[in-house]
Amino acid sequence: MPYPDLDTLHEAADRIRPYAHVTPVLTSRTLNAKTGGQVFFKCENFQRCGAFKFRGALNAVLSLGTSEARHGVVTHSSGNHAAALALAARQRGIPAHIVMPATASPIKRKAVAGYGGEIVLCAPNLKSREATARRVQEQTDATLIHPYNDLRIIAGQATAALELLGSVPDLDLVLAPVGGGGLLSGTALAVRALAPETRVIAAEPAGADDAYRSLKAGRIVPSIDPKTIADGLLTSLGELTFPIIRDLVEAIVTVDDPAIIAAMRTVWERMKIIIEPSAAVPVAALLEGKVKAAGKRIGVILSGGNVNLDRLPFSPGPEGA
Amino acid sequence: MPYPDLDTLHEAADRIRPYAHVTPVLTSRTLNAKTGGQVFFKCENFQRCGAFKFRGALNAVLSLGTSEARHGVVTHSSGNHAAALALAARQRGIPAHIVMPATASPIKRKAVAGYGGEIVLCAPNLKSREATARRVQEQTDATLIHPYNDLRIIAGQATAALELLGSVPDLDLVLAPVGGGGLLSGTALAVRALAPETRVIAAEPAGADDAYRSLKAGRIVPSIDPKTIADGLLTSLGELTFPIIRDLVEAIVTVDDPAIIAAMRTVWERMKIIIEPSAAVPVAALLEGKVKAAGKRIGVILSGGNVNLDRLPFSPGPEGA
Repeated sequence: MPYPDLDTLHEAADRIRPYAHVTPVLTSRTLNAKTGGQVFFKCENFQRCGAFKFRGALNAVLSLGTSEARHGVVTHSSGNHAAALALAARQRGIPAHIVMPATASPIKRKAVAGYGGEIVLCAPNLKSREATARRVQEQTDATLIHPYNDLRIIAGQATAALELLGSVPDLDLVLAPVGGGGLLSGTALAVRALAPETRVIAAEPAGADDAYRSLKAGRIVPSIDPKTIADGLLTSLGELTFPIIRDLVEAIVTVDDPAIIAAMRTVWERMKIIIEPSAAVPVAALLEGKVKAAGKRIGVILSGGNVNLDRLPFSPGPEGA
Repeated sequence: MPYPDLDTLHEAADRIRPYAHVTPVLTSRTLNAKTGGQVFFKCENFQRCGAFKFRGALNAVLSLGTSEARHGVVTHSSGNHAAALALAARQRGIPAHIVMPATASPIKRKAVAGYGGEIVLCAPNLKSREATARRVQEQTDATLIHPYNDLRIIAGQATAALELLGSVPDLDLVLAPVGGGGLLSGTALAVRALAPETRVIAAEPAGADDAYRSLKAGRIVPSIDPKTIADGLLTSLGELTFPIIRDLVEAIVTVDDPAIIAAMRTVWERMKIIIEPSAAVPVAALLEGKVKAAGKRIGVILSGGNVNLDRLPFSPGPEGA
């Protein structure tokens, strides 16, 4: 299957423009000094719903035909995609059925419900999630929108990099985190189309390094029992995202959880913006020297900013420690 | 004494331009929906040193004559002014002697030292601070730069509102927090000069409501034993800031600490930016309905973003509580 081309990405950008934010690109003297490069942060933590996920969900929902759309959409997710799909569906005035495990946190349920999503609870395992989603589909004729293994989703996520490349010229490198690969494959497609000289590198938690291993093995290595604080990056690559990543991404580097937490803290303290652990993963790769930044112009997609302020990973210690 | 006029404020803006950030103005659908108005947040938490204080300190340092400057500057402060003055002095290449109580937190000492300030410790009371600062002055011939009761400081702080009014037209209202009154008096001068139809209202912690009481009494009522989480707003008004505030500020409203913490949390969660408790005070005034926002265009100066992430005021509770 041919990858989505530049026209397809521009169509996605046009489609979402009335509803999604064009997020700012921020820089930081401190981060530049620490890395030795010039780093441009694309702030998807400022996107609606607090994450880039709204772009893909919105593009998918707005791509549906009128009769198809009338029956609504369905997905199984407990994360940012769930809230994003609920809000995207609300923008179009159609129902969104969100299958969530009964164990999902009240915060996440509240976010989905707040955006008008209809929550359908299931048991906390993949089998129950898929079966429940299928049942909802059969009952409602709603269209299943997968969180990343969907070309409309991938094209939507690509619009973040389109904006970044449009506002910051001559990047040597673009860094993105990788979980299921929707953001990364979209980013790679945008970079290839607009700035083919620019390299794309992904960063992944060491405790969920299935994409790293997949790229090395040349086939999808599933994520089994991943353990990381970066809870947006637990999933495996998909049949659609993997080949794009294999062909267009130069490397995947891994960082451990202490480095992710330290990078998150550095961004909070020095840039005064809130990013979630998953968004800190590429920053950690820079701060740990896993990606050499000296003398380079580097774009970093800060993927989201949804955290539970009651459960922060900063250990309360002696002041100033 | 005549107040600093628009030319004086523009001179301050020209003076600091090479070193200070033009901070962004952000908006939030959620905050607009919650208040019923259109709120424009001037993000001084993104200023260098993490607070508007850098503007005033820089204007003061750059206003010194060459021979005067050579001997350096001195102040007694343990807060944002200390770090701001240290960095401002470094920009000019002159020494900054910062008198701090021996009880000041390691974080604050580290910030001052990191910007090249020379720390002189004293006992933790006003008498010792003033005596120590005088001694340093006598020994070094350094110029004392008061944190707010100084027209160069006031003119420097005014540049934040100048930028806000320059980028957002037709504001009905500008809100700022008030402690010693440097930011508030500067803001009021800028508004009077550039947008005389726009009203200025200040917000103050109920536990440190000396400015509220001063405006009511028509004279400076000192702050005695203030108690609030907004630790940037503990000081009393000065001889220079009070008359400007008395003449140009329409009202001062007070908010209690739970409202300040709730407002801070709302900004963190919904805008994904980090503000300190003092910066949350005017936001609390809006969210509590102390200032009626419905149908109005309102500018809010978010004064700073320096917090200790190990000591956050959000009570760890059941998730989603």
